[in-house]
Parts: sequence; C-alpha cells; structure tokens
Amino acid sequence: MISRFYICRMKKAGILGGGQLGRMLLQVAANYPVETYVMENDENCPAAHLCDHFVKGDITRFDDVYQFGKGLDAITIEIESVNEEALCKLEQEGVKVYPSPAALKIIKNKIVQKQFYKDNEIPTSDFVITQNLLELQLQQNFLPAVHKVGMGGYDGRGVQIIRTREDMEKGFDAPSVLEKMVNIKKEIAVIVAVNDKRETAVYPSVDMLFDQRLNLLEYQISPADLPEKVLWKVEAVAMKVVKNLNSAGIFAVELFVDINDNVFVNETAPRVHNSGHHTIEANYCSQFDMLWRVMLGYPLGSTAHILPAAIVNLVGAEGFSGPAHYEGLPEILQLENIFVHIYGKKETRPGRKMGHITIISKEKQELIHQANRIKQTVRVVCRQ
Amino acid sequence: MISRFYICRMKKAGILGGGQLGRMLLQVAANYPVETYVMENDENCPAAHLCDHFVKGDITRFDDVYQFGKGLDAITIEIESVNEEALCKLEQEGVKVYPSPAALKIIKNKIVQKQFYKDNEIPTSDFVITQNLLELQLQQNFLPAVHKVGMGGYDGRGVQIIRTREDMEKGFDAPSVLEKMVNIKKEIAVIVAVNDKRETAVYPSVDMLFDQRLNLLEYQISPADLPEKVLWKVEAVAMKVVKNLNSAGIFAVELFVDINDNVFVNETAPRVHNSGHHTIEANYCSQFDMLWRVMLGYPLGSTAHILPAAIVNLVGAEGFSGPAHYEGLPEILQLENIFVHIYGKKETRPGRKMGHITIISKEKQELIHQANRIKQTVRVVCRQ
Repeated sequence: MISRFYICRMKKAGILGGGQLGRMLLQVAANYPVETYVMENDENCPAAHLCDHFVKGDITRFDDVYQFGKGLDAITIEIESVNEEALCKLEQEGVKVYPSPAALKIIKNKIVQKQFYKDNEIPTSDFVITQNLLELQLQQNFLPAVHKVGMGGYDGRGVQIIRTREDMEKGFDAPSVLEKMVNIKKEIAVIVAVNDKRETAVYPSVDMLFDQRLNLLEYQISPADLPEKVLWKVEAVAMKVVKNLNSAGIFAVELFVDINDNVFVNETAPRVHNSGHHTIEANYCSQFDMLWRVMLGYPLGSTAHILPAAIVNLVGAEGFSGPAHYEGLPEILQLENIFVHIYGKKETRPGRKMGHITIISKEKQELIHQANRIKQTVRVVCRQ
Repeated sequence: MISRFYICRMKKAGILGGGQLGRMLLQVAANYPVETYVMENDENCPAAHLCDHFVKGDITRFDDVYQFGKGLDAITIEIESVNEEALCKLEQEGVKVYPSPAALKIIKNKIVQKQFYKDNEIPTSDFVITQNLLELQLQQNFLPAVHKVGMGGYDGRGVQIIRTREDMEKGFDAPSVLEKMVNIKKEIAVIVAVNDKRETAVYPSVDMLFDQRLNLLEYQISPADLPEKVLWKVEAVAMKVVKNLNSAGIFAVELFVDINDNVFVNETAPRVHNSGHHTIEANYCSQFDMLWRVMLGYPLGSTAHILPAAIVNLVGAEGFSGPAHYEGLPEILQLENIFVHIYGKKETRPGRKMGHITIISKEKQELIHQANRIKQTVRVVCRQ
C-alpha cells in the first residue's frame, strides 16, 4: 500500500535559481498537480513568491543544494552555475535531476563543452584552449576568433571577439577556449525535450538576431526561414548534441549557419532558454510546460506552432540603474497580437534582461514590423 | 515629485478569495509590473502560494476586507459573497474596486439582480418573488419554473427546478426568486470587459452545455454556433446589462436563447468566469489578462480568438471525498491540442470544480470529439 500511496501523492519538484526562467516555469506549474520549491539567495527574486516553498540559499554551495534537494522527487536548474556535486549525490539517492549532473558538467565549462562536440564528431568551429593571456598571445594565426572563458560566463559576459592582435588584451587570463570565427549567415536555436524514456520532441528552429555590442538577442523569429535541406541539417546536428549528452530535460542548441550552408554548433544550454519564450503563446506545448511534463513523468507535448512568432527582449537601457520603469508599455499594449512578459526584477541595469514581448501572426512581415515597433517604443529605464 | 513617484511605483492589487479564479489571475499577474495580495481564510487555497502577500482572513467580514484593501491601489473579487460595505468604504477612500460595490450589490442578491433586469427593460424571463415556502405554494399557476435563493447560491447550489406542485417542497424557505422556465434552445455566455473610461471589449459568445443533474457546465464551445441575427441580439443584450451596471471590471452574462430565437438574460457574474477559461489559450487577450489591464490602467486587449476552443470541466466524481487524484490525465496529455489546468485543491468532493481542460482546433468536430474523449477518460477520484 505504501508504494501505491507513493505513486499517487503530489510530486515535489525544485528549481535551483529564482530568475525569470523559474518565474515562467512556476506560472505553468500551477496547471499541474505538483508542489513547487525554489532556492535562490534573494527572497525578492522574480520566482520567490510563485512557489509553494521558497528556500533562501546559495545554489553554488554543496550543503545548500543537497539539503534543498533531499526530499524532492525531481529537481531542475534555471542557470548552469549550480553545485553539480550536490546534484550528483541527489541523483545517486534517487532524486530525478534535469539535466543529469553528467550533462551539466559537460556544458557548464565551455572548454569541456567544446571538446565534447569534437569528441562526438559534432560539427563546431575549430578551437584552441588557452590557459592564460600569454597562451592567447601565441594564437595570432588563429584570428579572427572568439574568446570564451571556461567557467562563469553568462548573458554575453565572458565572451570577447578577438579580430586583431590589438583585441587580444580584451581576452581572458583564465582557462578559456578560442574559437575560430565562423562566417555567419544565420544564428539558429533549436530546443529539444528529452524524457526519462529518451523520447524526444523538437521545436521548430528559431532565427536569432543579435545586438553585436551587448551580445544580447535583439529579436528572434520562429519558425526560422531556412531552406529545407539546411533545416534538416540543423535539426540533425541539434539531435546529435542532445543524444550524446544522454540526459533527460530541455536543451537549447544554438547553431551557426555559414555562408556555404554549413552548420556548426555554437553552444548548448541544458535548460529552458530565452530562444523558446515564444512557445508560451505560439506553440501547443510551451518549453516550460514541456519541462514539467518531463519532470512529472507525463507524455511529451506537441511542439507544433499554433502561429509563427517573434520575440523582442526588453533589456535595461544604457545609463539607467535602479528601480525599473517600463516606458512605452501602455502604447504597445494597444497592439492586438502581442503578449507582454515583465520579469518583476526590482532594479534595472544596462543590458539586464527585464522582460520580453511576444508577437504572433501568420504574416512574417507583420512579425518584423511589430518587433521593430516594440523596439522603438519600449524602454526599460528608472523611475523619475 | 511625490505625485510623480506615485505614478511610477509598482501598483498594489488585491483579490478577495483564493480559489481557482484567483490562481489563474495570479498566473497572468506575473506578466505585469504589479504587487499582488490575496485574502482567503485557508492558507492552503489554490491561490495562496502564487501572490506576493497572502493574508488569512474572512472575506465576508467588514474589518478583514477593509484592513486588507486599505493600502491597495485596486481590488477585485473572485466570488460574490464578499463584504460589500467594506468595498464601499474602500472605494470612497480612493481604492479602485472591480466591480464597483454598487454593481456587486445588484448582482449578489438574485432577487435584486432580477429586478434590475426588469427595471432596465433587459429581456429576462418572468418572475415572482417569494419570501418563504408558503408564498411559493401560492405560485402553482406559474410552473414550470426555477426557484433561486436570493443570497448565497453558488455553483448549482441554491437553485431548484420546480416543474410540478410536488417539486415545491424542494424550494427555498427564504427570500427567493421564482423564474418562469424558458423553453431553452441554447445557453450562451458572453464576457464583456469594461475599463475606467467605460470602454468595452466583448469576447465571442460561448455555447454552454450543462449537466442537468448537478447544474454544472458539461462542456462549452467558443465561438457559439448562432445565426448572425441571434448573435447580434445576444451581444446587444449582454452590452445592455453591462452598460446599466455602470461599473468597470469583467462581466460574464449568461443568456438563454429560446426556441423562437428570443434572448433572455439568465444571470450575470461581475468577475472572471468559468465560461471564459478557454480565452487563456484560444484568444489574444485572456479574460484574466484583460482584468489586469483594467486594474492597472492599461489599454483593453483584443478579444479575438486565435483558434476556436472547447472546455471540459473536471469536477469531483460521485462517491469520492478526500485527497484528489486525476485518473486518466497522462492519457489525455498525449493529445496534441489540449491544455490542462488543475486547480491544486487538496481535496475532491462530488461535483467540486477541480480543474478544466481546454481544446483548441479550427475544426468544430474535432473540438467535440476531443471533449467527449476527455470526459470519458479523466476522472477526479481519491488516492487509493
């Protein structure tokens, strides 16, 4: 009878990190029978007030993560920089961990991640590993290239473009990977869900357009505009990444398509991802819904889109640090086909992700038109 | 400068009641810059863990409601049985109240509500008021009719069908309204949003199909299948109700269409409503999103549907009272075009609203097919 009770009681699921990804996960969690837990070191974080149990703690500390996860059925992350040793121990003790600690370990260090692509014959740009700035200096012949710090990069931090010898001083004096620059035609993201049975569900590819300066997404359009042959290649490469990671969870694979239609993996995130936010409104099963299905042992949902979509990220405007104000929001809320998501961060900072706006329409021109209109209208500034 | 600060700070908004309507309101609130408050007498209610501030209190007590509402910018309800005197005082002191206490007062007593329709020449079935069972006995010539208790009816309670003299003993020995039975061809619901400027937005009409025994919705389809001429009449009548209530907020007007295509108002709810749950996925701006727009002073959203929808309510199965278990849920989650909403109530009871499932499809036959499939598959029972 005990095992039967176990089957039927409400599952307990935890999220390490309480930012916007946790927030959006929790908005969907309320659709399912699940008891939710969040750990973050800030009780005013975006996700803190939307869970059943908020635990203040340091997600990078073994003890904090282990204590948090010990009584849970399932645990996931919304940021890679968590204590993976604790997750390993939890996994050994029967807690289901999404992604698996082994996959997380590969992804969280960009040197290891890059080596993983190479070892598994997954197409990725050439690279060399540099332990410090001195070693970087020796790689003049490898330029132009992108220097990525092994550990701790996030949201455009920890990445430097090194075109010339002079740029080298911007590089990292720490273990890093120097990646040969690809002659990029397009940047694409593909989100793949994997359940415990290793069944997979692939979302339509997304076209990503970047702000080169901040290395932040400017806007994205789904489905991506790619010739069928390239699309197949993109999906095949993304699937190969995910299969070789050998882990359940949600994975966002970012890829480059070069001018010769070659496909290279750039990076993979082992979690819900900014490139999938449009799935909330535009697809039958959103990436957040999908992760709950995986964690709760439900069937995978449909990744098909209901309508094509675009997303504009709302990032903190330059020159403003402090209590956030969303200039132009009422004006944009007059548009018929848009969906606003403000993340509830108390303070804005230049380049900080403060929200996003999704546009859905069957007309691609309409998506682009509205995206530009939103970019020109909405600004995250400080209260005056 | 103080007034400027006032304009820009995050608004505080409260909900009286912490059931599924509050829960779904709070899922959407996380998309907007708003600080949320909920009052309910049960800290395990469906909405308690999804707000910034949960206050345990009795929504029918003046002091509790007044203290709760005093510091807020806006307040709304998810059930009619709240203390409206406290809402009146809050309104006088500058808190925005949705619906207005005056409108709430009309609606909350079914006798007053019925009289309101008559006074404003809004088509509704004939009626007589009965103060007790003795007065009911005098109305044999008025049968068949429906007896509705003035105060405190909810979810099918407080309503009795009186076809014959023998049925009269099932009537209410309290102030009630006896409504002449309409020869119903269809039951329709129309949701209308009204903002502070008295601008309105009307959602497409919904076809409602009832379980006669429990008087609970069986399933509903949107948009309703009505000849254009009848549709116009339905919308015109719903608008007349809302205009005469003279209040901002969200209103669900339930109507009968009789066999001669005459339209009668049945009842109005001054809040988000079960008949609008499909708008979460099927319409650009859901009823929950719309109420936040009204409360936060944003423009009204689009009520247009993205795709037609059906809803099946998940109510507690007969014979089960206790910890809820959702039989058949994994099977239904395999369907491509469905969206599950479980309300997180700890205990099921026969007829209790425990969740709903939305189906979206451009094919009406597909909506009906899936609705029936869901009804045959999902059962809310107890854990074994």
